[in-house]
Amino acid sequence: MTLTPGHAEGIPHCVPDTEREGRLGFAEVIYCPGKTPAQLRAVAEVLFAAHANVLATRATPEQAAVLREVDAGVEYHELARVARLHRDRTLRGRGEIAVISAGTTDIPVAEEAACTAEVMGNAVRRLYDVGVAGIHRVLRRRDEIESCEVVIVCAGMEGALPSVVGGLISRPVIAVPTSVGYGASFQGLAALLGMLNSCAPGVTVVNIDNGFGAAYAASRINCRR
Amino acid sequence: MTLTPGHAEGIPHCVPDTEREGRLGFAEVIYCPGKTPAQLRAVAEVLFAAHANVLATRATPEQAAVLREVDAGVEYHELARVARLHRDRTLRGRGEIAVISAGTTDIPVAEEAACTAEVMGNAVRRLYDVGVAGIHRVLRRRDEIESCEVVIVCAGMEGALPSVVGGLISRPVIAVPTSVGYGASFQGLAALLGMLNSCAPGVTVVNIDNGFGAAYAASRINCRR
Amino acid sequence: MTLTPGHAEGIPHCVPDTEREGRLGFAEVIYCPGKTPAQLRAVAEVLFAAHANVLATRATPEQAAVLREVDAGVEYHELARVARLHRDRTLRGRGEIAVISAGTTDIPVAEEAACTAEVMGNAVRRLYDVGVAGIHRVLRRRDEIESCEVVIVCAGMEGALPSVVGGLISRPVIAVPTSVGYGASFQGLAALLGMLNSCAPGVTVVNIDNGFGAAYAASRINCRR
Amino acid sequence: MTLTPGHAEGIPHCVPDTEREGRLGFAEVIYCPGKTPAQLRAVAEVLFAAHANVLATRATPEQAAVLREVDAGVEYHELARVARLHRDRTLRGRGEIAVISAGTTDIPVAEEAACTAEVMGNAVRRLYDVGVAGIHRVLRRRDEIESCEVVIVCAGMEGALPSVVGGLISRPVIAVPTSVGYGASFQGLAALLGMLNSCAPGVTVVNIDNGFGAAYAASRINCRR
Amino acid sequence: MTLTPGHAEGIPHCVPDTEREGRLGFAEVIYCPGKTPAQLRAVAEVLFAAHANVLATRATPEQAAVLREVDAGVEYHELARVARLHRDRTLRGRGEIAVISAGTTDIPVAEEAACTAEVMGNAVRRLYDVGVAGIHRVLRRRDEIESCEVVIVCAGMEGALPSVVGGLISRPVIAVPTSVGYGASFQGLAALLGMLNSCAPGVTVVNIDNGFGAAYAASRINCRR
Amino acid sequence: MTLTPGHAEGIPHCVPDTEREGRLGFAEVIYCPGKTPAQLRAVAEVLFAAHANVLATRATPEQAAVLREVDAGVEYHELARVARLHRDRTLRGRGEIAVISAGTTDIPVAEEAACTAEVMGNAVRRLYDVGVAGIHRVLRRRDEIESCEVVIVCAGMEGALPSVVGGLISRPVIAVPTSVGYGASFQGLAALLGMLNSCAPGVTVVNIDNGFGAAYAASRINCRR
Amino acid sequence: MTLTPGHAEGIPHCVPDTEREGRLGFAEVIYCPGKTPAQLRAVAEVLFAAHANVLATRATPEQAAVLREVDAGVEYHELARVARLHRDRTLRGRGEIAVISAGTTDIPVAEEAACTAEVMGNAVRRLYDVGVAGIHRVLRRRDEIESCEVVIVCAGMEGALPSVVGGLISRPVIAVPTSVGYGASFQGLAALLGMLNSCAPGVTVVNIDNGFGAAYAASRINCRR
Amino acid sequence: MTLTPGHAEGIPHCVPDTEREGRLGFAEVIYCPGKTPAQLRAVAEVLFAAHANVLATRATPEQAAVLREVDAGVEYHELARVARLHRDRTLRGRGEIAVISAGTTDIPVAEEAACTAEVMGNAVRRLYDVGVAGIHRVLRRRDEIESCEVVIVCAGMEGALPSVVGGLISRPVIAVPTSVGYGASFQGLAALLGMLNSCAPGVTVVNIDNGFGAAYAASRINCRR
Repeated sequence: MTLTPGHAEGIPHCVPDTEREGRLGFAEVIYCPGKTPAQLRAVAEVLFAAHANVLATRATPEQAAVLREVDAGVEYHELARVARLHRDRTLRGRGEIAVISAGTTDIPVAEEAACTAEVMGNAVRRLYDVGVAGIHRVLRRRDEIESCEVVIVCAGMEGALPSVVGGLISRPVIAVPTSVGYGASFQGLAALLGMLNSCAPGVTVVNIDNGFGAAYAASRINCRR
Repeated sequence: MTLTPGHAEGIPHCVPDTEREGRLGFAEVIYCPGKTPAQLRAVAEVLFAAHANVLATRATPEQAAVLREVDAGVEYHELARVARLHRDRTLRGRGEIAVISAGTTDIPVAEEAACTAEVMGNAVRRLYDVGVAGIHRVLRRRDEIESCEVVIVCAGMEGALPSVVGGLISRPVIAVPTSVGYGASFQGLAALLGMLNSCAPGVTVVNIDNGFGAAYAASRINCRR
Repeated sequence: MTLTPGHAEGIPHCVPDTEREGRLGFAEVIYCPGKTPAQLRAVAEVLFAAHANVLATRATPEQAAVLREVDAGVEYHELARVARLHRDRTLRGRGEIAVISAGTTDIPVAEEAACTAEVMGNAVRRLYDVGVAGIHRVLRRRDEIESCEVVIVCAGMEGALPSVVGGLISRPVIAVPTSVGYGASFQGLAALLGMLNSCAPGVTVVNIDNGFGAAYAASRINCRR
Repeated sequence: MTLTPGHAEGIPHCVPDTEREGRLGFAEVIYCPGKTPAQLRAVAEVLFAAHANVLATRATPEQAAVLREVDAGVEYHELARVARLHRDRTLRGRGEIAVISAGTTDIPVAEEAACTAEVMGNAVRRLYDVGVAGIHRVLRRRDEIESCEVVIVCAGMEGALPSVVGGLISRPVIAVPTSVGYGASFQGLAALLGMLNSCAPGVTVVNIDNGFGAAYAASRINCRR
Repeated sequence: MTLTPGHAEGIPHCVPDTEREGRLGFAEVIYCPGKTPAQLRAVAEVLFAAHANVLATRATPEQAAVLREVDAGVEYHELARVARLHRDRTLRGRGEIAVISAGTTDIPVAEEAACTAEVMGNAVRRLYDVGVAGIHRVLRRRDEIESCEVVIVCAGMEGALPSVVGGLISRPVIAVPTSVGYGASFQGLAALLGMLNSCAPGVTVVNIDNGFGAAYAASRINCRR
Repeated sequence: MTLTPGHAEGIPHCVPDTEREGRLGFAEVIYCPGKTPAQLRAVAEVLFAAHANVLATRATPEQAAVLREVDAGVEYHELARVARLHRDRTLRGRGEIAVISAGTTDIPVAEEAACTAEVMGNAVRRLYDVGVAGIHRVLRRRDEIESCEVVIVCAGMEGALPSVVGGLISRPVIAVPTSVGYGASFQGLAALLGMLNSCAPGVTVVNIDNGFGAAYAASRINCRR
Repeated sequence: MTLTPGHAEGIPHCVPDTEREGRLGFAEVIYCPGKTPAQLRAVAEVLFAAHANVLATRATPEQAAVLREVDAGVEYHELARVARLHRDRTLRGRGEIAVISAGTTDIPVAEEAACTAEVMGNAVRRLYDVGVAGIHRVLRRRDEIESCEVVIVCAGMEGALPSVVGGLISRPVIAVPTSVGYGASFQGLAALLGMLNSCAPGVTVVNIDNGFGAAYAASRINCRR
Repeated sequence: MTLTPGHAEGIPHCVPDTEREGRLGFAEVIYCPGKTPAQLRAVAEVLFAAHANVLATRATPEQAAVLREVDAGVEYHELARVARLHRDRTLRGRGEIAVISAGTTDIPVAEEAACTAEVMGNAVRRLYDVGVAGIHRVLRRRDEIESCEVVIVCAGMEGALPSVVGGLISRPVIAVPTSVGYGASFQGLAALLGMLNSCAPGVTVVNIDNGFGAAYAASRINCRR
């Protein structure tokens, strides 16, 4: 195969895995970074035809516009950088998923989690800006959090909130370190290490800023079989 | 307060938190490293009186012996370094918890997970030595894994097994990086980073060698309310 | 030597090593970053005169244009950021080189490998978007991969694909970690560490995003003496 | 100078800085690791003659015995690994210094802080085993902590306790990360980073396990001029 | 809750914690990065109504302008990136806070500290450009520094100045590593590690470039009860 | 399954993968660390029955003795920590594999490579102690190295030797960083990074001290189909 | 926009240390990053009046123009980012300083070294593009290098050249790691670690890209007393 | 135990490079770690026959005894872990080499430097225990240090002493970070980074604890041609 200038688009590329919903319970998710408009369109056409609900993460507004060309029903959540086709709004979970953020700056990650959980068939309860520097804010809402089936906690800086939440309730806690902070936060590393070493048992962790992954796991936990 | 030589034992120390079972669903767990026999005994007396089931992790055989002096019913699992008082054997989960290990050397961590899950009221299904270098071993047991409620996957070296398992089934997967490996494994760091970056969605992660934490989270997920 | 403002171009610079083809089997490769147009032109004039095939890596479109001014036969592969003079198209290998990518986003690195392998006289077989989250995609193509002489596997995130491939076939596997991922991928570090710790024997590793280096090594392996 | 085998003791060594008390407010502190008995004795003789109170940190029982040979009044605190000559027991502070530990395993570091603060003329209030997994333990003692002049908080694992304390009170908080933990705690690095990134303002940090340094700083803060 | 494109502003966000002044001694501080104009305005309206003095850190000129729309009395310190409402200029400290910078390039961090200390009711003494490469500069001003109640030392590169200052005086020293430097300074990591390992006792440390945090702690120390 | 004290041996363990020789070209290799005598014996019995040649790496003398109980033909190479059953001594390669060590201290790693290569059917040429501080030593043997099919280069400290070798010859070079060195070698990290960044093309890298992996890859390269 | 309280433009700033030439042998060097035009001008006026030769490093063209406004004799070397006033061209060294670069991309760092050495009174011999991938290039010039008094070697990627040079000659070698490379070079960290671990004795190292520091040290070495 | 194929005791090993003295100015130095008695003896016999002075570093007492069996004139310096044959005591330098240590615990590294410098023909001036916490100690000896030709400064913890010394004198300064410290000193990493980022120009750095390398470089600098 000889590539000549300008023909880079001719190379073989992504083949959507339409069997994934059957195997994993939800359609293949489109990870947008680095995808060209042509690639996005090709994937979207296949997935939109095969599934009721489809999610695209880390989407720029331009990429969302490409997806909306394929199906006008695509919603775009700018803060969460999420585009989604949400045709089937049946709730499939045993209960609600709580999405908690420590600070205002963590909200985009929390929203990525919330948008993901919704499109996968879960009811979401948002509790934002309840970080440990004012611990009464989260203590006051303990019963509300306990009433949910799963709890996602997004926090940057030292990432202490999941430890506090994990010590208050009996539900599974998924901690999402965010890249919020500066200096020795090392783009979320401090929060990540803090969460991995949480003295509160029952806390599991996902990658930095990975609100999507937390919600995907939470949805599996919440899902009625 | 004046400390004089030899009186170090007089300092204030651990006060068991007997309210924890009510709040979190399970009694306070005894983390053994650094605890003196006197401290262990003091804690055990309070906890054994207050709860049917009690768990002690990272226990040396000597520490297990101290605990057995408090209650002869204490079992010790040397491989898992777990001592436990397991008086109430009621199963409380909706289904089984699968505990998978990639290699033989990961088994101590897997056993810590299994022993923890059991004492918390869960049925455990062990699948050991099914690492990715012989991928057919795990593929053949896909349905068995899917039948469980939650899946714990312990792996060292590159920690690739949770990605493979996470791409095969629809259940929550908790990945446990182990410190098995050498050189650039950096005592489990390679496996930890691999699992945090898993391309399979729905995977959450706990600290290196933290079989206990994985099982505690799995038990919360499996638990019938 | 006194430098005055504006005379920076007068300093001594790169002297192409035209003996390298005799010694190493292929002409000196032009590493473009940081090279000025004048430097590029000077090098290209010497190398294009001395060798049939010449490769330039990490080339911007502007740098490729400079090279094409020296010889209009220069091809530019934008995705791969590779410019090459490919006058001698004789195949010199014992067989094909497989170039595998885990995801769509890894394709630029895979293409750098493929373009390099081709200009060094190898037939290339591309298998793209066959990552471990849908393991059946690579399992189905096991025999096709086994039929090649050498296998290059490009993967980002946790970098698990080389372990799976290395456990399926008997051919040498060269793993290329890519910087695809975010958060705790640390720009490819997670994939790099994963590949270095692969539990599948026979896997060797090159630098992050170094498709060129992987193909150069693969070509040495494939080369008939 | 020619060293011959066996004469290593003849090399020039430590010259105690007896002006330090005048300049810094407290006598030079003896850092024991690596000091030979002869070196320890030489330093102790000079310092014990010049100052009422002298502190030696990280002392082994054997090193403490050497110091006690120089002055029988030396106390040794095994848990804290501190030896001290505490002849002048005048309290010089404006109030008490609180020393808080998150867990039982952090007590040796907390005791190093407490012993240091005492020998420097401060009253110490100890609050041990009040970590964030049972947050009510520290909340209940808020007023007691607020009543102190300075607060030292020792915590390992994720090191979240200083953030909680710093958000509850108006006094200066000095955070001491401890090396308690395993895996991704990296011998206290996780706690250190957590504390440096605390979302609670007014928290400053010292080196891992450096109870001594925290108390020295606290004593400077508490000191009446 | 269904988010549609453009309605991201509808999500729940920051709720100012107006009880913080009573609890911690100073109003909640506005951390500007990532805050939208609407969020900033909402927070400022609440805080400006409840408190005489309010501080906003890491503010861009645009963000400062938003705050000034809420109250024309807001001052903006461009070098320090600090906006502040400074209505109550009562001095509340026992003495002055010294703010020292090693080099000219560290001044923005030093100014963040100085502006913070002032708005919290402290008199500030600035000593800039007195780094260790010309050690006489700081030695000459020893008595001036000793006369202050607390000393903040800002330094980048190797961060050696706090060790020198800490060995000269008897006052508490708060060290602020700055991100000034290049190469192996790793954006302030070298200075941070240096300060944490200071051989001068009594030095505590805050996050890289965290002039704000240093001053907040210094103000707590200086504060008359 | 209920584990009681002392019954840890009853847990499921390693199941040898006897299909591996057909799939990968060589029998499953026994990685000895952490394996109990019972586990070793069980694995060895299966593998020794199924294959002519079997390799065990990182074996202690005690572990080697256990293997020799299973088959008296087991050889043990103490320096290389390798035990092997080497019944079929047919050479299967197209040529020789060169194993080069930079220093004397790197020889154990080089020997692990050499012993592995031999048991897999390759002729090995050893060139030891030819590091770059005396560059003439390797330059004099250039033709001898070029005559081999594949070249393994083991080096610690700065790991520069593979770059020099890679620039001299046209054969594939596999670099093995060793943990030889101290201080900022960080147990082989410096050598590993150096080799990954080699300016000589055609160099691939394996894990620190992984002589086995280098030889396994070299054997795949050398192997006649 | 006018800054008020704090008088940020009025704040004390850099006070040139004109005693430095007497103490250290060369005038204070102006480190340009972060300096405002006003600060630069103020410093330059003092230094240009006090010294014959003055050096400014990491200068942008705009900053060089400011310096030239103070004295039209200022030369600017764009590649080296160096501005210098070089009025006294007396040679003060015992011999020449060799400045060697491994690749073309390392030349800016090498030029910073060369320009610094010249303005400090040294004759400079430049040898560029002689990296280890073509080892004959540096071997051929061994005697020329040996004839110099001091040798500066600039290299990126794996940084192997100083080891080779250090093993060929008897003169002091100062190694300068450059940030040239990608992936696991981590902006010069790989080269830095390689040079610190050089197996060739007599090699000392400076910070990444610190051509200035290397030349300053070389000038001290070369200087006749 | 019988080693067979490969003849591991018969394997080729270290070949002393007796040309090194002519090329580099001093005989090959014996790096002892990992060398067997047989290897040590073989090397020593060749080197002791060829050179008047020979140095062995990092030698255990047992290894020193082996060397003394080869030549009874071998001296062993236990603190420095150095064994040396020092037959020719001619001084070859232009002046003295100063060896400075910050603390008592740094003396072993300083002694390795001093012993190395002496055996290479240099006069050594030792100044120990003059760290920055009592800055007057080094200031008082400024002229004594300036009188030397080269200055070696050994320091652990934050490694600030070379910056202070480098700012006081006009001679070349070689900084040796030591592994003295704990916690965030990371075995000398903090001191290493501090020294690489020294704000005092003219400071070059060697590996952690590498007193030998510092002295070797200092001797090259001091050497009369």
